[in-house]
Amino acid sequence: MFMRVDKLQAELPAPKRADPNAAAALQELLGGKYGEMSTLGNYMFQSFNFRSKEKLRPFYSLVASITAEELGHVELVSNGVAMLNNGPDKPDGDAGDGGDISGAPFEDMKDIRLAAAFLSGGGGAMPVNSNGLSWNNDFITTTGNVVVDLLHNFHLECGARLHKLRVYETLSDPTGREVCGYLLVRGSVHAHAYALALEKITGVDIKKFLPTPNIPLGNIPECQKYLDEGSHRRLYTFSPNDYKEMSGIWGNGEVALPLDPPGELEVVDGMPEGGKIHQLVGVPSAFTPDYSPEEMFEIAEKLYKKSR
Amino acid sequence: MFMRVDKLQAELPAPKRADPNAAAALQELLGGKYGEMSTLGNYMFQSFNFRSKEKLRPFYSLVASITAEELGHVELVSNGVAMLNNGPDKPDGDAGDGGDISGAPFEDMKDIRLAAAFLSGGGGAMPVNSNGLSWNNDFITTTGNVVVDLLHNFHLECGARLHKLRVYETLSDPTGREVCGYLLVRGSVHAHAYALALEKITGVDIKKFLPTPNIPLGNIPECQKYLDEGSHRRLYTFSPNDYKEMSGIWGNGEVALPLDPPGELEVVDGMPEGGKIHQLVGVPSAFTPDYSPEEMFEIAEKLYKKSR
Amino acid sequence: MFMRVDKLQAELPAPKRADPNAAAALQELLGGKYGEMSTLGNYMFQSFNFRSKEKLRPFYSLVASITAEELGHVELVSNGVAMLNNGPDKPDGDAGDGGDISGAPFEDMKDIRLAAAFLSGGGGAMPVNSNGLSWNNDFITTTGNVVVDLLHNFHLECGARLHKLRVYETLSDPTGREVCGYLLVRGSVHAHAYALALEKITGVDIKKFLPTPNIPLGNIPECQKYLDEGSHRRLYTFSPNDYKEMSGIWGNGEVALPLDPPGELEVVDGMPEGGKIHQLVGVPSAFTPDYSPEEMFEIAEKLYKKSR
Amino acid sequence: MFMRVDKLQAELPAPKRADPNAAAALQELLGGKYGEMSTLGNYMFQSFNFRSKEKLRPFYSLVASITAEELGHVELVSNGVAMLNNGPDKPDGDAGDGGDISGAPFEDMKDIRLAAAFLSGGGGAMPVNSNGLSWNNDFITTTGNVVVDLLHNFHLECGARLHKLRVYETLSDPTGREVCGYLLVRGSVHAHAYALALEKITGVDIKKFLPTPNIPLGNIPECQKYLDEGSHRRLYTFSPNDYKEMSGIWGNGEVALPLDPPGELEVVDGMPEGGKIHQLVGVPSAFTPDYSPEEMFEIAEKLYKKSR
Amino acid sequence: MFMRVDKLQAELPAPKRADPNAAAALQELLGGKYGEMSTLGNYMFQSFNFRSKEKLRPFYSLVASITAEELGHVELVSNGVAMLNNGPDKPDGDAGDGGDISGAPFEDMKDIRLAAAFLSGGGGAMPVNSNGLSWNNDFITTTGNVVVDLLHNFHLECGARLHKLRVYETLSDPTGREVCGYLLVRGSVHAHAYALALEKITGVDIKKFLPTPNIPLGNIPECQKYLDEGSHRRLYTFSPNDYKEMSGIWGNGEVALPLDPPGELEVVDGMPEGGKIHQLVGVPSAFTPDYSPEEMFEIAEKLYKKSR
Amino acid sequence: MFMRVDKLQAELPAPKRADPNAAAALQELLGGKYGEMSTLGNYMFQSFNFRSKEKLRPFYSLVASITAEELGHVELVSNGVAMLNNGPDKPDGDAGDGGDISGAPFEDMKDIRLAAAFLSGGGGAMPVNSNGLSWNNDFITTTGNVVVDLLHNFHLECGARLHKLRVYETLSDPTGREVCGYLLVRGSVHAHAYALALEKITGVDIKKFLPTPNIPLGNIPECQKYLDEGSHRRLYTFSPNDYKEMSGIWGNGEVALPLDPPGELEVVDGMPEGGKIHQLVGVPSAFTPDYSPEEMFEIAEKLYKKSR
Repeated sequence: MFMRVDKLQAELPAPKRADPNAAAALQELLGGKYGEMSTLGNYMFQSFNFRSKEKLRPFYSLVASITAEELGHVELVSNGVAMLNNGPDKPDGDAGDGGDISGAPFEDMKDIRLAAAFLSGGGGAMPVNSNGLSWNNDFITTTGNVVVDLLHNFHLECGARLHKLRVYETLSDPTGREVCGYLLVRGSVHAHAYALALEKITGVDIKKFLPTPNIPLGNIPECQKYLDEGSHRRLYTFSPNDYKEMSGIWGNGEVALPLDPPGELEVVDGMPEGGKIHQLVGVPSAFTPDYSPEEMFEIAEKLYKKSR
Repeated sequence: MFMRVDKLQAELPAPKRADPNAAAALQELLGGKYGEMSTLGNYMFQSFNFRSKEKLRPFYSLVASITAEELGHVELVSNGVAMLNNGPDKPDGDAGDGGDISGAPFEDMKDIRLAAAFLSGGGGAMPVNSNGLSWNNDFITTTGNVVVDLLHNFHLECGARLHKLRVYETLSDPTGREVCGYLLVRGSVHAHAYALALEKITGVDIKKFLPTPNIPLGNIPECQKYLDEGSHRRLYTFSPNDYKEMSGIWGNGEVALPLDPPGELEVVDGMPEGGKIHQLVGVPSAFTPDYSPEEMFEIAEKLYKKSR
Repeated sequence: MFMRVDKLQAELPAPKRADPNAAAALQELLGGKYGEMSTLGNYMFQSFNFRSKEKLRPFYSLVASITAEELGHVELVSNGVAMLNNGPDKPDGDAGDGGDISGAPFEDMKDIRLAAAFLSGGGGAMPVNSNGLSWNNDFITTTGNVVVDLLHNFHLECGARLHKLRVYETLSDPTGREVCGYLLVRGSVHAHAYALALEKITGVDIKKFLPTPNIPLGNIPECQKYLDEGSHRRLYTFSPNDYKEMSGIWGNGEVALPLDPPGELEVVDGMPEGGKIHQLVGVPSAFTPDYSPEEMFEIAEKLYKKSR
Repeated sequence: MFMRVDKLQAELPAPKRADPNAAAALQELLGGKYGEMSTLGNYMFQSFNFRSKEKLRPFYSLVASITAEELGHVELVSNGVAMLNNGPDKPDGDAGDGGDISGAPFEDMKDIRLAAAFLSGGGGAMPVNSNGLSWNNDFITTTGNVVVDLLHNFHLECGARLHKLRVYETLSDPTGREVCGYLLVRGSVHAHAYALALEKITGVDIKKFLPTPNIPLGNIPECQKYLDEGSHRRLYTFSPNDYKEMSGIWGNGEVALPLDPPGELEVVDGMPEGGKIHQLVGVPSAFTPDYSPEEMFEIAEKLYKKSR
Repeated sequence: MFMRVDKLQAELPAPKRADPNAAAALQELLGGKYGEMSTLGNYMFQSFNFRSKEKLRPFYSLVASITAEELGHVELVSNGVAMLNNGPDKPDGDAGDGGDISGAPFEDMKDIRLAAAFLSGGGGAMPVNSNGLSWNNDFITTTGNVVVDLLHNFHLECGARLHKLRVYETLSDPTGREVCGYLLVRGSVHAHAYALALEKITGVDIKKFLPTPNIPLGNIPECQKYLDEGSHRRLYTFSPNDYKEMSGIWGNGEVALPLDPPGELEVVDGMPEGGKIHQLVGVPSAFTPDYSPEEMFEIAEKLYKKSR
Repeated sequence: MFMRVDKLQAELPAPKRADPNAAAALQELLGGKYGEMSTLGNYMFQSFNFRSKEKLRPFYSLVASITAEELGHVELVSNGVAMLNNGPDKPDGDAGDGGDISGAPFEDMKDIRLAAAFLSGGGGAMPVNSNGLSWNNDFITTTGNVVVDLLHNFHLECGARLHKLRVYETLSDPTGREVCGYLLVRGSVHAHAYALALEKITGVDIKKFLPTPNIPLGNIPECQKYLDEGSHRRLYTFSPNDYKEMSGIWGNGEVALPLDPPGELEVVDGMPEGGKIHQLVGVPSAFTPDYSPEEMFEIAEKLYKKSR
């Protein structure tokens, strides 16, 4: 089972301007082969399909718990995409109706790279890559063989790091850069964790591959605050009570990677504090939440009061 | 953010025999157009992309919370699929190595409908439908228009009910039938919830469509115990503290559908008690968790002890 | 069986300039999830697969007849796409050969959003969406359950209306805007018709959802002439003799939607007068109809004479 | 524009038994690369995108008119698929409700090749091939170059003939065999017509390729009656008034292919007489048209009476 | 550039009977995510896109050369698939015409798992997996980052080994088993080679992962002859003169993996001796090479004589 | 079996500037329906699946040999794509590390048409079309019927010629234009060869279709040098010793097409001289071959020396 908390794993700064092509670039980290839907999908189905869960508890717990974190990554990138599509909030953005729409108010939307993101998605995020292609089962490896699956996951995190770095290099807006900075640190943790898991089974010191690509996290300014708070040494259970057994792998005297700030690895019960979810203001002229949303707002307010 | 709990939403009885074609039928409820990946994907991205969240809090909370429940549905169907592929547990199933594999020990696997489920997935679940086709973004509607999205969701739940009924009619094994019985009750709740949400906004008494197809839940023996415990009147927040505002929609004196056991609708904080996750015993001759897993088990046991 | 008439359902004004990105936006209404290929595909296969056709004649006739109209919608959007890709006709555009092509005469085509529309399609329309992705069976719901299928159709028309509105808002050229204006009126008729069909079966006054999105047709200048002529109150049988029985649903004293010009609904035998099909002038330098088409024209002229 | 007539192009005999795998084989002729959706899609979009329509009238008319016939082919195969899935009609098949569904009444449906055809499609036809894969834009060639498009069409019809022959060889039921027999004759006409069109332009006697594969139609018993009535020498305009100009190509003294019954080719105004559409009886236990359809039937009957 | 030699890399024994489902299982090794089209596609595009080829010559040569070997693997599996579909050769199988085809001579083909393999492919191989799904670009990783790409390749070979083992376990026919046996040995070489390449760059002793899954090649009887001849210690340049530089990686005192027969690794110029390509006898009743091929054979014989 | 030679079939001039949209246009010739992956895939699988190879030796040899040439075409286009993405080589382009990447050094990459080509592919080529869609099995026809397959191939080459011409017309950079010029000549040879093969079997003078589109090769300046050297009259066996029998088709007194420089057709043993492969300089800031590649270069140099 899964539970949900109405916060993001990291606080995202507001975008400075609407930039649908930046949002489209960020989509690579959502629905691309090496995006968050892929890390989620792989670990989620691997955890469902895991054989001999009891006998392999630390390994199962690791995959199961990271699955929950990846859900939050999908959420984080999605929020970033929607924010970049939307741009800075307009005061009273969703007040009033959409006005006269006969003057081609969204003419510039036909020239954005992924026009369907506006025409169909209304500026929201969807599980597609930066070319608009759908995420799908081809991106999932769940063989039931523990070494093959973990090795796949290790390669996946290294590839994902490369993709995050390249997307980061295309973005000037703080929203998207923060998404990348946060994910680079957390993805590094996951690569490290899978390396340790593989090392336990095979004896191969595979963590020496890290970082791949071989640029230190410290070179990315947006990673700095997360390194300072020790995020790179921490795995959360993302659970009220379960998955603590992964501390047999992430912990036990293992330490941070050489190029990162030093310290012991630790498993933390529960989840990080996180940040608030950005309020996406509607655009009545784009029919979000609708053309004339005022009555809907009033209804919602009444229902809200009844719910208290 | 999301958290995870190491339980299923419902306890599944053990399968009586391995039945890969039954597992393949159940895949329709996992990766088909009207399967759980679709309900999950629609509500998840709709909740990420929701406009004017504060002003439409009860509606946002409803979609956001049901998303979390759908994660558990994906998990439940996936467990059912893997169990049906695997069959009843063999005592010491994963003890010892895989033995002599030169005698075509899995010859019958080349005749199952979805051979890749064995050859690639090792008998696990994957986000594909009953014909092996991948779930994908074509199944997602997230327009940002609240009425269009909710109307889509209502239609989706009705269609999903039809698909669950038909899959149920093909299954004789208790595992798959329990999955269907549970999901029929919970899907009915979601259809009812979206109907109420739409009624609040539009005034249309759309819940009169229910049940669609027009067969009462009571006709399905596997639904009975869930009806008895009142599951059909209950929405969980699936959250430690959030999403309570949906009680403005699900509650407020609203009652069960006419053909179901009567009573008031209620929002329950947190999650249901759930059942334990079935232990999938490995099959060393199929290389799950590996051909000779014993050393891996020993390593895991040591790591487990260190984690306590 | 189907017959064809060499006219469009509506007369389209000539485009003012070639605008491949506008054509690409219009593709969303052709091959997107909520485009005309989808309405066509859903109703066509539902009508083929319709159970108990005789006993449910008015419902069958409705779906069967609207199928025929949707064929004309696919044709109309396709014509719009090709016209926008082509731009205004050049006098004698296809006279002479294509001249010297060594100077990169179509260099600007590599920067249009959907380059394959030129490189492969030669500026024609194809069943793809605004991102170039193919229409496919994932967009079809044909369950054989009448309520599920009709409910799907109602939601589909509402979603299609939203998509038409957004595409309209990106277009400044009269060709594309006319396509949208006409389709908005006709799509409104279809949504209304499915609402009435559902109301007959379930008693739910589902037409109160309309218009969704909640902007009156009257706000769209390009809809005005169609409203004036009462198109919003009319369903054509699109048949020499069949499908009249749908007047049991569309008719019978039912009237126009409240925000539209008032009046009774009526079923009209046959088809609307329609407008002429725009003559797409060839571009010999793009090898349409060929590099040196003159000889082909002469041959065609001789054959034409023989056919009289 | 298109019109519809409530008949099939050929009368189909009732199936002797339900045979979902035969229906699945027939799907190759519906949604496969060389199936009727492909001939339809190619000619339809080619006719929309046709350049210099006036100057190339006989060629345009040929493609435009055959498009209309292909719609009827899609309809014919779809009817065949649904009939084979359904089996012989049960008297009062859709009377009464669906009864007790708890005994896995459709257990055999989990073993059919395309389980989704039942689980989702309820035994109806869908635009997929014999492996369940969707028809899509990859199967369309519409370049705007007349020779390339016609050459593609000629190859397409030859390939389609091969596929029809192979599907025919797998079917023992009369319904599917009749579909193949009829389509073999009509496909032969289309191959012949495109050959003549190409010959007019290029002077190449390409009709000498026919028949490809090199088996005479006379070897197929199910073709005989269509040959006897001269169907192989006839192209219908499938239009009240248009497309007669194709007689410049199909006519003009051209005669039947050497291995077929001799005679002149002729263009016939309008459409063939056709046969009646088979009444698919509903299966309430499969929720078609619904679980308890009686009330719906009564409503429909009242509406029907009002429509007269 | 590439050259072709009219031999297979290994001699395949004739099949004992036609077994389309066995052929379909083998398709997993052709068009599946971990099949030979994937190893080919990855290495081919990586070698095209390789950066700093001169400076990284040994690494480039390794990837470039293995690409050529993979072409032969695609060929080998394809031959195996076609042979299994075809069954043992019938003497004079393609002499005479196809006879009377009106008796449903291929009725059993509608029940095979991948009916399109017969209906469309005529029993040939296609780049699809064991469920009939197409190989595609989603299976390719070509990032230009050497470590990410090599790590991907190492994981790919381990995953491919698992898939080969499982397919092997489903096959009783000698043709398919020989394909698996040969590919297991050669795939082991490639995994070993990528491990060494990665070790050179990173210092990580990653070859200790091998074999994964952890079953020795010696346990597979069909591998024995290849081990005996030392195939597991040999990389061919598959080139007249190029790619020798890979001996800096595969060689240099490196030795066979511990569980395999011992010995030094060596790069061998050119290609292995290989075996002859099986002659697929046509089936005139299935229209291969055609219904009445005799005339074609005579023509070919004359042309053959002229070519000498 | 296949061998590889470390050269391109034609020497490509260096690009004048990086032009990712030109590279994206060129992708149509790589992964589009009428691109080189399609010609390769069709002929490769047709040659694997060829029935009665011995009896049809000249035809088999033709298809088998052209397959090998197509591999080189895929390589050539891929090199062109990568070169256009990369732009002119920077002296010491890959020396040093990637420097400070925090200033959005690749901001312009988010606006290119196929952003994933940079974000994921690092500027390399992939088997996708100009809209980023994957090449797949839908583009393959391999029926086993010789006439259908050859006719398909003839149409494919004509369609491919049209696509090459249109891509050529969008390119101003010499790299891409040279790719087109070379492929136009070689594609013309293949169309001619398939025409002759079909003529031998059917007697139809199908080569009179050529050139299609009807523009002479001589009109394309980039074709001139290849015409001058007689490339249009030459088929290479692309084999050390095999496939000579195709001279029964390509030769035997057959001559060049009327609009091309005159002369006899000839089969040439082996392969053309070809040109050198362009050295793609890495871009450390884009992590190709890595962020700090110097150590890797040193390692490679040492390994290179050991290999001599």
